[in-house]
Amino acid sequence: MSIPSQRETHPAVHPLITERWSPRSFDGSAMPQEDLEAIITAAGLAPSAYNVQPWTFIYAHHGDESWDQLLGLLVEFNQGWAKDASVLLFAVSDTHSTGPDGIRKPNHSHSFDTGSAWALMAMQAQHMGYHTHGMTGVDFPRAAAELGVPDDHRVEAAIAIGKRAPADRLPDGLREAEAISGRKPVSEIMKAGRF
Amino acid sequence: MSIPSQRETHPAVHPLITERWSPRSFDGSAMPQEDLEAIITAAGLAPSAYNVQPWTFIYAHHGDESWDQLLGLLVEFNQGWAKDASVLLFAVSDTHSTGPDGIRKPNHSHSFDTGSAWALMAMQAQHMGYHTHGMTGVDFPRAAAELGVPDDHRVEAAIAIGKRAPADRLPDGLREAEAISGRKPVSEIMKAGRF
Repeated sequence: MSIPSQRETHPAVHPLITERWSPRSFDGSAMPQEDLEAIITAAGLAPSAYNVQPWTFIYAHHGDESWDQLLGLLVEFNQGWAKDASVLLFAVSDTHSTGPDGIRKPNHSHSFDTGSAWALMAMQAQHMGYHTHGMTGVDFPRAAAELGVPDDHRVEAAIAIGKRAPADRLPDGLREAEAISGRKPVSEIMKAGRF
Repeated sequence: MSIPSQRETHPAVHPLITERWSPRSFDGSAMPQEDLEAIITAAGLAPSAYNVQPWTFIYAHHGDESWDQLLGLLVEFNQGWAKDASVLLFAVSDTHSTGPDGIRKPNHSHSFDTGSAWALMAMQAQHMGYHTHGMTGVDFPRAAAELGVPDDHRVEAAIAIGKRAPADRLPDGLREAEAISGRKPVSEIMKAGRF
């Protein structure tokens, strides 16, 4: 493994945030259900508009009856490495929310809020010694159909969680790609006063 | 202040995640630009599909020339308390990304990924002794127009960051609402195998 030991970042940034990254080499070990519950509890503590909590996480443990089905919803490239994750999840958002008048209306932030839940999931998993890898290389229409996702919900992403294995476990081509990714300079993503 | 001291949560969840909540009573103090840079650096370390990093954060410090304009983009209810934040931000996502073929295509996870950046921003702010409060009570069309947000970008949410003040600083009606919000039971947001 020749993974850069850490990112260039601001020294004040919390180590859990700096050290999080998205590997592909997992060891295929089992995750206790209790660990998964802690990880999803953390996701559920994310903020959301009007505390609507528009997120649902569909999951399968490695070896569960539904594992092959969930794995099969990823594009082939992702199946090639995600097969060794401990848990696969699909993050789903409710695109509507019920107002005080009892009427269902489009929720401006259903994806944004579900993304914030995913980030806390990633933080919590890392805190517990796991790594996470989000994916949009997913057959989304088939995922919605096969997972029974209602029409007024949206499949946002798939997520692999597991324990890291040495990169040489990966197939050719992926081994070299197993590296911490860089980021835009902060000056590019913060703008004073206007876009 | 009679704020519940903490949430019911899983004992394994990291305290930064458990203890984060969204107050409205801020003390109006100034935030050093260096702190804001650390907070936005943390946001920028979020994962995103193909590492596209679709997020931009438009900001104003309390007292900046653009402060009144940014504050005025919130609905009146939010202006009533957000006026005492140290910094206001608007989270904007790029709805498209450029593929390896150089062509701009819709990005499935632009909102989701920008939401994950917002969650890390909230974690980092809290780590530094600040509190955050996200808002979708925003005049979104006016925000996009006045902030010069391009047509292929989306204003996701506004964010207030500041130091907490006693709740009795808040106007009537908000004082009683200054409380840590509950969450759905984890069993409701995790589903084995299918929705």
